[in-house]
Amino acid sequence: MKNAKPVLGITMGDPAGIGPEICLRAMREPAVLERCVPVLFGDVGVLERVMGRIRLLGPMTRNLSMTEWGELAEITGPLIVDCAAADAAAVEPGKVSAACGKAAYVYIEHAIAAALAKRIDGVVTAPIHKESLNLAGVKFPGHTEIFAALTGAKRSCMMLYSDKLTVSMATTHIGFAEVPQKLSAERVLNVIELTAQAMKHILQREPRLGVCGLNPHAGEHGLFGRREEENFVEPAVRQAREKGIQITGPLVPDAAFTLNVRKQFDAIVTLYHDQGHIPFKMLAFDTGVNITLGLPIVRTSVDHGTAFDIAWQGRADPTSLFAAVRVAAELAVTYAPHATHPTHKI
Amino acid sequence: MKNAKPVLGITMGDPAGIGPEICLRAMREPAVLERCVPVLFGDVGVLERVMGRIRLLGPMTRNLSMTEWGELAEITGPLIVDCAAADAAAVEPGKVSAACGKAAYVYIEHAIAAALAKRIDGVVTAPIHKESLNLAGVKFPGHTEIFAALTGAKRSCMMLYSDKLTVSMATTHIGFAEVPQKLSAERVLNVIELTAQAMKHILQREPRLGVCGLNPHAGEHGLFGRREEENFVEPAVRQAREKGIQITGPLVPDAAFTLNVRKQFDAIVTLYHDQGHIPFKMLAFDTGVNITLGLPIVRTSVDHGTAFDIAWQGRADPTSLFAAVRVAAELAVTYAPHATHPTHKI
Repeated sequence: MKNAKPVLGITMGDPAGIGPEICLRAMREPAVLERCVPVLFGDVGVLERVMGRIRLLGPMTRNLSMTEWGELAEITGPLIVDCAAADAAAVEPGKVSAACGKAAYVYIEHAIAAALAKRIDGVVTAPIHKESLNLAGVKFPGHTEIFAALTGAKRSCMMLYSDKLTVSMATTHIGFAEVPQKLSAERVLNVIELTAQAMKHILQREPRLGVCGLNPHAGEHGLFGRREEENFVEPAVRQAREKGIQITGPLVPDAAFTLNVRKQFDAIVTLYHDQGHIPFKMLAFDTGVNITLGLPIVRTSVDHGTAFDIAWQGRADPTSLFAAVRVAAELAVTYAPHATHPTHKI
Repeated sequence: MKNAKPVLGITMGDPAGIGPEICLRAMREPAVLERCVPVLFGDVGVLERVMGRIRLLGPMTRNLSMTEWGELAEITGPLIVDCAAADAAAVEPGKVSAACGKAAYVYIEHAIAAALAKRIDGVVTAPIHKESLNLAGVKFPGHTEIFAALTGAKRSCMMLYSDKLTVSMATTHIGFAEVPQKLSAERVLNVIELTAQAMKHILQREPRLGVCGLNPHAGEHGLFGRREEENFVEPAVRQAREKGIQITGPLVPDAAFTLNVRKQFDAIVTLYHDQGHIPFKMLAFDTGVNITLGLPIVRTSVDHGTAFDIAWQGRADPTSLFAAVRVAAELAVTYAPHATHPTHKI
């Protein structure tokens, strides 16, 4: 076997955040190197500055210019692809800037291109800063939307995965007021199906799913709200069951995440960002993995932000990135539509 | 001192739910009887049936007809006021019915009247069923709204209190889609002030408060949503600070309830039902107390529902009711505007 381990692209995230530091940690972490061959898409100049700041000793991983990367015939070990997207000397840690937003986007573009070309088996992303991205003129609200657009995914959604709780979301980075109009029975069904597929691959058995209602007490049969439960959730549940998916709902949202209820499910489908994120972050703050479902490529991410307040200080916790690598490696061999690797758990 | 202990009205809740059982437990619970003189507003016929079903032995607490209650000069010990609002023989445990909804409402009316007349020092409520209430033609969506209307409160809100987390809510029993239009800087400020007052009375010191944003990531400065954070939350925070309240916000909702953030605050003001209820129920499912702030009377409640699935079976956990009695007793002596008792902790 040429490559017993999957090759995973890692994007460095916003240069001014904790991304460079946690990526440097990942490139020398035994648990990462055992599970995959990491290829970091970033800026070597930034990484060198961060190594100096946090006093990380030792040689940097082998790095290639974009030209060298373009000409590379075979990936034989860990690599840094120097995208030369940021002016390293000008980066100020902890500062919102168009330059850093642009650079973070370029790393993602190169990683997605490599994954679509099957040079790598999946992409793991370090955090980007949405304001910097926006200043750079990148109009996507987040990673999930970038990956959906650049890979041409017809339907996709965000899933937050951990050993304590797993949630997926029917809507993500939109305003609270826009949620009801973005919901439909079709969208809820799509997210249920994507979640069922992913959890089946992760667990290697049929998953038990729940799906939340939208309104307080799931609407109490029309007492609150505009019957979003009857109109969007119930038809999706019926259709999902007809397709053989084990699903229960609409669940009362404030009961769904209590231990007695959540333990009945392998994953819970939620209808909006904070319905899933609030309970997930309470239970799995540093250990969660963000997975984009429905893409033609494997993509996972840390579930935290750029943490500008502690950027470049040697204080960032890389646990979530290590977990994202672990899950991406598992998915790359069991789930990726194009995987050329044997279908077994690493 | 005629009454060293406050007299607390307890409403029996929906006869078909777990209310009768947990109220019977409360009437003979030493921790309840030490802290207050309980007066249960309910139906003796229903209580007798429930005692038989759950095999609760021993005499029932002294009970009075409505006429006797009306003529009673002095409350000298625990009492049951037989409101005769339900046809006891016709009550089916676990069933939604207009008759039970109506009876539950009558108990509340009598308890509020007694509190406004200062015959009792506060009201503790067992759970009602919103569908039964609605079938009975009672158009209030919940206890909080009934108490606000029947006591003529100008501004009020729900607070969920526990030793793990305390949250108050700027909106409560309304549909998800109606939340944005119900918010205003004035409403958020009112809820901040009510929360600050209540927590100061409970803690006997200035509380540290937080307030959440509405949108994912608190809107990220206008990236998501319609600037509800800038329009409603930030002005309320500024005005509250000018009044001397220690408050931080808008907090990012999905970070606010992680341990590291929530431990910085004595209470967190939330903007909608599930933003507060989801984290609260995860942390304090059986031990939480629901307090209505801003009323001219003290009112606390269990934070659970009627649990129709286990009604009249002897399986209901009365812990939350006992906690609600404890908090009402504390508030009755330290907080009630009309309290005639010495201002000290029981």
